[in-house]
This record gives sequence, structure tokens and C-alpha cells, in this order.
Amino acid sequence: MALWLDAADADFESAFKELISMKREVSTDVGTVVDGIIADVRKNGDAALAAYSARFDSVDFSNPATPMRIGEDAIEAAVAEVDPKVIAALTLAEKRIRSHHARQLPPDDFYEDEIGVGLGHRWTAVEAVGLYVPGGTASYPSSVLMNAVPAKVAGVERIVMVVPAMKGAVNPAVLAAAKIAGITEIYRIGGAQAVAALAYGTETIAPVAKIVGPGNAYVAAAKRAVFGIVGIDMIAGPSEVLVIADGDNNPDWIAADLLAQAEHDEAAQAILITTDAALGEAVDQAVERQLKTLPRSNIAGASWRDFGAIITVPDLDAAMPLANRIAPEHLELAVADPDALIPKVRNAGAIFAGHYTPEAIGDYVGGSNHVLPTARSARFSSGLSVLDFVKRTSILRLGPEQLNKLAPSAIELAECEGLGAHAKSVAIRLNSKG
Amino acid sequence: MALWLDAADADFESAFKELISMKREVSTDVGTVVDGIIADVRKNGDAALAAYSARFDSVDFSNPATPMRIGEDAIEAAVAEVDPKVIAALTLAEKRIRSHHARQLPPDDFYEDEIGVGLGHRWTAVEAVGLYVPGGTASYPSSVLMNAVPAKVAGVERIVMVVPAMKGAVNPAVLAAAKIAGITEIYRIGGAQAVAALAYGTETIAPVAKIVGPGNAYVAAAKRAVFGIVGIDMIAGPSEVLVIADGDNNPDWIAADLLAQAEHDEAAQAILITTDAALGEAVDQAVERQLKTLPRSNIAGASWRDFGAIITVPDLDAAMPLANRIAPEHLELAVADPDALIPKVRNAGAIFAGHYTPEAIGDYVGGSNHVLPTARSARFSSGLSVLDFVKRTSILRLGPEQLNKLAPSAIELAECEGLGAHAKSVAIRLNSKG
Repeated sequence: MALWLDAADADFESAFKELISMKREVSTDVGTVVDGIIADVRKNGDAALAAYSARFDSVDFSNPATPMRIGEDAIEAAVAEVDPKVIAALTLAEKRIRSHHARQLPPDDFYEDEIGVGLGHRWTAVEAVGLYVPGGTASYPSSVLMNAVPAKVAGVERIVMVVPAMKGAVNPAVLAAAKIAGITEIYRIGGAQAVAALAYGTETIAPVAKIVGPGNAYVAAAKRAVFGIVGIDMIAGPSEVLVIADGDNNPDWIAADLLAQAEHDEAAQAILITTDAALGEAVDQAVERQLKTLPRSNIAGASWRDFGAIITVPDLDAAMPLANRIAPEHLELAVADPDALIPKVRNAGAIFAGHYTPEAIGDYVGGSNHVLPTARSARFSSGLSVLDFVKRTSILRLGPEQLNKLAPSAIELAECEGLGAHAKSVAIRLNSKG
Repeated sequence: MALWLDAADADFESAFKELISMKREVSTDVGTVVDGIIADVRKNGDAALAAYSARFDSVDFSNPATPMRIGEDAIEAAVAEVDPKVIAALTLAEKRIRSHHARQLPPDDFYEDEIGVGLGHRWTAVEAVGLYVPGGTASYPSSVLMNAVPAKVAGVERIVMVVPAMKGAVNPAVLAAAKIAGITEIYRIGGAQAVAALAYGTETIAPVAKIVGPGNAYVAAAKRAVFGIVGIDMIAGPSEVLVIADGDNNPDWIAADLLAQAEHDEAAQAILITTDAALGEAVDQAVERQLKTLPRSNIAGASWRDFGAIITVPDLDAAMPLANRIAPEHLELAVADPDALIPKVRNAGAIFAGHYTPEAIGDYVGGSNHVLPTARSARFSSGLSVLDFVKRTSILRLGPEQLNKLAPSAIELAECEGLGAHAKSVAIRLNSKG
């Protein structure tokens, strides 16, 4: 059974504070190990990658069946293994993700202001991006699409995928997703060593400019360490959902949505806020019922027991400030009129509106991105989009007339800041010919 | 004298590679110290801030003249000290920065696709932002405007400024800039302890959601450490300029621009690429001449000697790939037709077009932002803008008909990924009533 809170209770505020500041992740201090691995890869390149892969993944790159780079033939062979229904679903997903993300391409801008100064910017794609794909059971083909398609839409020319391959094996559906997304450069490497190779390059792997994709504590620490040398996406934490429901809901549907989140990870969090205590009660019972038949019921059960919560509120308006403090990765609005609530959402990665939009649709084929800010980071960051794969160059253009008008203020400020050469670079153009 | 390279030389490629991979910053390993300071502030709050400020900044918060928070009266008193010409210049700068950044507010989007799925997003402002302002000679009023104005334009409700105050004193022009930008919450704290206070909060300082602004190695390490708890902007490195010049230029103007960059910091870098060796020669001589009279000639001279370079190329087209590999923070196009080159720029923080746009105008009153990606990070990141202070919530909305169409593919992929509860949360809506 999950935690029950009632917003009308006297001690609600302190209990709610405790809920949102709950530390769900076991923090592992892997910094020193990771720094050592990065230094080794920078120094020894491919040889270091081979050694770490032998040690951690039991894979031998000198075996012709499992070279570091996964060849085109191997990709094709893997794709042929995958159920055609999965291929069809991935193809549909790719098409829908691509078409939605195409609307995110930001426009260039250039204009002259009232004194004739030209101001503007141009957007260009990052030239090369590394995509980290976890191994094992967290090796999700859908994540390959969600990371790669926005990069493709942005115009990234080179996408390099890395994926750890225990005993050389890679999930064939992951390779199929890569092929559908148009990725051709794939290496059988993982962990901090793969991040280091992407950031600094080796004899075989040319360095990239940005690294995206989820990973374990070592991968996260390595991304944090190379941040600045390359760009990185967010550091992903355990997943979470908040469902806001009025009384007019099927409790089984809500329970299924809560459990879909909880099954990800024992550290995942599923919260229901409802105006109807009876619905809350019914959902709680439905969760227990459904847990009995779920394939991943151990994981989902632990998450629900340790981090799940049901909160009752007097009305939907009272739910919104709580939702914004939770700042959930996923926010389901299981209410009659979701459009009335949407403008009141300040902090959330993604909104799933109405009774027929289970979050799982967004994980796969909705078209929007499933890489979203976790652990309350929706307070300051956004889900993955085309914007993560482009950068802006600003443009400024003055003629002699504009320079004459702005020069005195620029010189005043440069001198106030003690930057004489700044002042001179402006002043010199007023007193001599170009 | 700076390094001379000729693109026609046989060993050019290796010399150029060395130039762009030059490490200009002395890396200081301050991680352990910073981790300790952060833990202390988390545990001891205001008391830790008072102790560090006494130790590092020789300021006593219990002295009524120098409390931790700088009161409105103290701000007013500081503003009254500042030369009215500086106030006027800051006011003009604020107005121009605000008017330009107002164009950066990104639009919301919502549409129905061809099967009736509703897709879109809404942008909302980050609620609270911390602005770090360095102390000492690097305490620039212009930087206060460049960081605060985009946040204000974005709609950030609370901006918290922190600035270390040696013996309690803060640059009055910095306080004037804060007032002009509309910042009212200012604390006399700096270093890793200030970053920790902004990220985690203390008894006096409520935590923020994002921290921006430049700082020394301790500040940078602290920002890296709290990344994830809060958002951060880029980790700024030493500044750089690349000037691309054809033969038809006044060498004194170009020299002045190179030195305006070089005077920032001994680790700053100024590079000239020119099609005309004679101009290069003349610029080199002009630099030496101007160095004799510059107030910061020691700094500028060291930067030019250690990191400056003049590169000759056969034509302007040959300059562009080199510029994109350098990925400069500032790119001046001192050529007859800058518009012909702009589309060829792939990696640069900002372009200054034509002979009458010295970079220093952009530092102060051009209207564009002077917080730009350094150390080749223009390959993957952009200058500061309104986008850094907003975040996007995506929206997905299906009705029963759309769910029926997409459900089979979603279920297929969920099952392929071993996520049974995901599949169930979709399937259950096909078989029962909501």
C-alpha cells in the first residue's frame, strides 16, 4: 500500500514536503573510478576500450564475430531476426516522431532596429553527436528513436551509437531501431569508457561534439566529467508519473497507468492526486489486484510501496500548486476538461490530456519525445527536442552612423570596467578611416 | 610577437591542430574542497555562509554596515555614487538588450495531426534564478545586465544576485546595473558557498531552480557539482576572438580588436586570419605599438605572445573551414561583403559583421548577449538567451479513435521491451469503459 495524504490534514504540508524531497536514488560515488577510466582512454585509446570491454562486458574485439564496430552485415542480420510486427511498429513510431519534431526547427531572424543596427541569429546543427544506449534489460529500441530522430531532423551529419555488448551480443531490436533511424556508425562499447571515447576520440572513433542518452551511475558520472569538452543532455534519474483524476474515472485505468511507471525501476515514483477519496481507495485496491498478474510485479510493487502516494484534495484547483511543486516528468490529466487545467501547469515534462492518453502512448508512438526531465528538474529543463541538436550564432552589424550613435555609451562602460582596449577599439573607428 | 601560420605551408595542418587544441586554462583540482564547502552549507546554512565570508572575504555579517543581504538603502546609496554618465549608458544598454531579447520568446504550439492526435507544447518561465557576479576586477556591471535581462524578459519572477564583497564592499556600478535590471534580492556572498546556498537554500536564502553567471575555478566546480539539483548555464572559459580580414582594412582597427580580447585575461586568445600577408604584418606591428600605451598591456601582451596567432590563407573561402574548427566565441568579419561569408559560418558564438562592428559594441550596447560559448564549445552550445530561462512542457491528447489506431503498435513495442504494465495501460482502455 502506498502513502495516503489528505490536503485538508493539519500536518499535510510537512508530509508533502517530505514526499517531494524523498531521495529515491542510491548515490554511488564512482567519480574516482570514472576519472581513471577517462584518463586511460585518453592515453591508450582503442587498447583501453578493448581492455575495459573484455573486463566488464566479456567481449573480445579481436574475435572476428565481435569487432568493436558493428558492421553493416551484422546490423542487417540482427534486423532480420526481429519480428516484422516490431519492425512495423518501430517504423510507424519513427515516422510519427519525425513528423512531430520537424515542427520544432527554430527560425532564423535578422532585422534592423530603429537606429539601423542589424541584429539577428542563425541556427546550425551540431556536426557530430554520440548516442549512448544502455545494455541489458534497459536497452530500449524506443529510446534509440527518441534520441536519434530529433538529431536527424536537426540536420546532424554524424550520429555515433555506442552500446555495451555482454559477450558481444546486442539487442537486435535496438539495432533495428538504429537502422530505421538511419544510424550506421555503431560501436560495441559502454560505460565510462564509451563516454570518454566519444568525447576525446580514439584511433578508430572520431570525437563528437555532444553526447546524449541514458546510462548507469558510471555513465552519468562520465558525462558530468566531460561536460564542457562536449555538450551533454540532462542527467536522467528514475522515472515518475503524477496522475490528477476527478471522481469520474475507471480506477483500473488509473491503476494501470501508475503501475506502468512503477514497473520501470524500484526507484520510480507514481503519485495520484484526486478530488475523490473513494476513487483513491478504488485505485489503491486495483493496484494491488493488478500487481498479482504483472510480469514485473516485484519491481512495480517495491516502487509503489516505497515511493507511491495517493493525495486527496478538495478540488482540482487545489491540485495544481501541488503538481507544480512535484514538477513531474509525466503528468496525466484524467479529468473531464483537461484544457482548463493545462494553463495552470508550470512545471512538468509532459502532459497527457484526458482519459484516452495513457503515458505509455507517449513512450512509443504518440510522436512527442519520451526523454523528459526527471527528479523535479522540470522546474528548469525541458524534454529532448530538435533544439538540443542545434546551436545559435548571433549576428550584429553596425555601419558608421550606428557606431557613432552607440560609441559614447560603449566607451563609458568599457572605461568604467577598466577595459581600456575595449574603449580604444571603439574610439579608434571614430577618429580614423577604415 | 604572435604565432604566424601560412595555410600553404606543408606542416600547416599539424601546427593548426596544435593551435586549436592548446590548453589555455591552468586546471586547478578544487573538487574536494568544493564538495566540503557544499556539504557544510547544506548542513549549517547561514552560519556556514557567515564563516566562509569572514574567512575568504574578510566581511562580518554581524556588522550592521555589512549584513549578508544588501538592503534597499545600501543599493540606493551605491547608485548615487555612480557617475551619471555610467548610469545613462547602463540604462541605454538595458533598453537595447531588453528590446532585442524580447524577440527571442519562443511560441507555443498545438495542432492535430492527420489522425486527430493533438500534439504541442507550452513554454513557461523558470520560477527563480540565481545570478553569480564575481568580485574584484572581474565584477562587471555589463554582465549583470546580460544575465538578468533575458531572465526578466522570460518572465522569471525571482532573481537572486550573489556577489562576494571583500571587506564588505561591492562595486557600486554592479549594484546600479542590478537596480536598472530590476533585481532587488542581493546577497554579499561568493565562491562555492554562494552556489551551494542558491542550490540548496539556507534559513535566509530560499533555493532557486537555476544558476547562471561566470566565476572562478571554485564557482565553476560548485556549479558542476549542483548540476541536476538546479540547472546551470555553461561553464565559461577564457574569452577569444577570431578576426577574418581581407586586404582592405585599417591595421590599427584590427589590432585594437585583437587587443580588446587579449586584455581580458592572460589566457584569452586573439587570432587573425587574413588573405593578405602584408596586412597581417601591419597588424602585428600595430599590436606592438598599441601595447605600449594600453592600461592593461601586461595582460594583453602575455595573451598575444602566448596564444595570439596570425594565419594567412589564399582566399576568404579557405578561411571558413578554419574558422569553424576554431569555433570562436567571437567572430569578426572585417571584409567588404560579410553577408557572403555568414552562411558559411557553422561554429561561432557571435558574428560581428563589417568594419564598423568592433566586438566591444556587442559587449555593451549592441543589444545582443555577450555571454557566449568559449573554448570551442560553440560546436555544441549557444550564447545566453531567453531560451535559457524558459522550459517546455509537451502536450499529447488522444481520443478513443486515436487510441484504437495507435494501440497495437504501442503494445507491440512495450511487449518487445518487456514492459507488461505499459502494454496493459494501453490495452485496458480498449476493453473496458472509462
